[in-house]
Amino acid sequence: MSNERKFSEYKGRSVLITGGLGFVGSNLARRLVEVGDVEVTIIDALLPDQGGNNFNVHDILDRIKIHHGDMRDDWVINHLVGGVDYIFNLAGSVSHLDSMLHPQRDLELNCTAQLTLLEACRSFNPHVKIVFTSTRQVYGKPVYLPLDEQHRVAPLDINGINKLAAEHYHLLYHRVYGVRATCLRLTNTYGPRQLLLHARQGFIAWFIRQALGGGEIELFGEGRQRRDLNYVDDVVDALLLAGASEAAEGEVFNLGGEEPVSLAELADELISLTGRGSVRLVPFPTERQLIDIGNAHSSYKKIETVLGWHPRVPWRAGLARTVEYYRTHREHYWSPNASTLSGPQKAT
Amino acid sequence: MSNERKFSEYKGRSVLITGGLGFVGSNLARRLVEVGDVEVTIIDALLPDQGGNNFNVHDILDRIKIHHGDMRDDWVINHLVGGVDYIFNLAGSVSHLDSMLHPQRDLELNCTAQLTLLEACRSFNPHVKIVFTSTRQVYGKPVYLPLDEQHRVAPLDINGINKLAAEHYHLLYHRVYGVRATCLRLTNTYGPRQLLLHARQGFIAWFIRQALGGGEIELFGEGRQRRDLNYVDDVVDALLLAGASEAAEGEVFNLGGEEPVSLAELADELISLTGRGSVRLVPFPTERQLIDIGNAHSSYKKIETVLGWHPRVPWRAGLARTVEYYRTHREHYWSPNASTLSGPQKAT
Repeated sequence: MSNERKFSEYKGRSVLITGGLGFVGSNLARRLVEVGDVEVTIIDALLPDQGGNNFNVHDILDRIKIHHGDMRDDWVINHLVGGVDYIFNLAGSVSHLDSMLHPQRDLELNCTAQLTLLEACRSFNPHVKIVFTSTRQVYGKPVYLPLDEQHRVAPLDINGINKLAAEHYHLLYHRVYGVRATCLRLTNTYGPRQLLLHARQGFIAWFIRQALGGGEIELFGEGRQRRDLNYVDDVVDALLLAGASEAAEGEVFNLGGEEPVSLAELADELISLTGRGSVRLVPFPTERQLIDIGNAHSSYKKIETVLGWHPRVPWRAGLARTVEYYRTHREHYWSPNASTLSGPQKAT
Repeated sequence: MSNERKFSEYKGRSVLITGGLGFVGSNLARRLVEVGDVEVTIIDALLPDQGGNNFNVHDILDRIKIHHGDMRDDWVINHLVGGVDYIFNLAGSVSHLDSMLHPQRDLELNCTAQLTLLEACRSFNPHVKIVFTSTRQVYGKPVYLPLDEQHRVAPLDINGINKLAAEHYHLLYHRVYGVRATCLRLTNTYGPRQLLLHARQGFIAWFIRQALGGGEIELFGEGRQRRDLNYVDDVVDALLLAGASEAAEGEVFNLGGEEPVSLAELADELISLTGRGSVRLVPFPTERQLIDIGNAHSSYKKIETVLGWHPRVPWRAGLARTVEYYRTHREHYWSPNASTLSGPQKAT
């Protein structure tokens, strides 16, 4: 059965996307609008620097509902959770570096908020389907490659620790209260609608910004670290497959890319695609080295076996589409105020 | 070298005990006072139902300093951490059942407060020695027995999830900032000065209360579950050994008992020791069964190898001492207001 056939399961159903104005969330919302006849509701607090951007959904505003609100407020989330068929739970902080600078804030966004949502599910919609996006970072420094779901977890930064706790919360609410939760451990995701404002949310978006802007892409340790990448459309596929599958409930799945790519290769490709930018090799900064994991890529065998997912978009093709997107819509992702300038400013 | 010789390392040094009016903390404070010439400072918020009890230290008040304050207040903890040689970090919530009823509260006490303390260490005393008490509960349902430190972690309740996150925080601050942290995973600890007010902080204290009070000890599933126990003096030994050892830094150690004991055996022994109480067999309540782990006991081989620790007090002897203690001091542990009645009420 093709993915598109499977996605017809969402027709006539209601879907809540937390963090739905962000990178992955907005791409998911757009796909659900394409499926058609899906009631899509987004909650997003548009917290500064977190990736929420009204422009991401500016052309589908008439087909979705948006709540500018904070998941940590139980009176907001209690109201939204009732009666929903699916929750794609993408809200949270994803920055490893930010989490080290502001650990309590990371804890609030990744644990307090998640518990608020899960408590709301327990009280008002205990059998709701919920798909939570976690991170490969929970494994820490790989003991072997590729990383599979049996690999020991040993997160190397506050963000990884809190994301792991949030995974455990979801699995616990599944086991104890029957919430139908699935956790996906995302690898490096890239594509249109990602935050390009700063370097703290992953290296790919930052490399793209530097290349498009004709700047320098700094490579630590000569850029030999190899990582796997997922184009955002592939991640959206995985989310929808997980949401539509009973077999996914109570399970944790890795996503993963076809083949690991070195950061140097990635930089070269971007310079070639944009015809701009350059590479500068610099020694590894201490604060990064301490939380860096070296080479890392994930095995997606489990999700392929259980849900039939595998990545479809080769990284060079994905990068070309991504560069094209930002070339066209640059003004909405470049400036520090892009996310608030391009839409209502009701964020709390 | 005997433990007592090793403990002379603490002479002339300053020690901060978080949660120091509680069960393990107060026993530790008393031991340090016995060592002599140790500057012992306690911080304890005396939160209701958490186990803090002024009576636990009523007879050593002239040899310790007590701050009634909350570790979540950074202005309190920042002030206390500077210049201290050792921190025994015992504050937190330990109730599995409470954590399921009030998950956000457990998160605050076990994660927010721990991050506040660790951030204070990073800023004001980055190379302080810190020993954190975690729980065997982080392993979840045993895949094999005895549980060693390589066993996969899969906590079955909010408390276990948050305690695991707090362990990770300590190890992270060790790796990244040089805080000299050690984590001990305690098993069922019992002995004098434990909270006896309610049944939510472990079964042993509750069994003791029921036996002494001539009540019924309820056994779920006929009481066949086997668990290992540690008398509190043995746990205090482990804390002091860990604090005094460089080899312990950045490490996680199980504690464990000599031999697992069934709950039915334990109940029988208590009835025989007190000459009171009775046993009633009841079906397993659903909400308990869902977070119960069945048989469980821990291997203490690692801490025995690295630190020379092993439990010394046989469980029947330990129980006899414990019953004797509560028989003598019953009024300070029995009533709902015991902990506040028996001392200053400055808890915030």
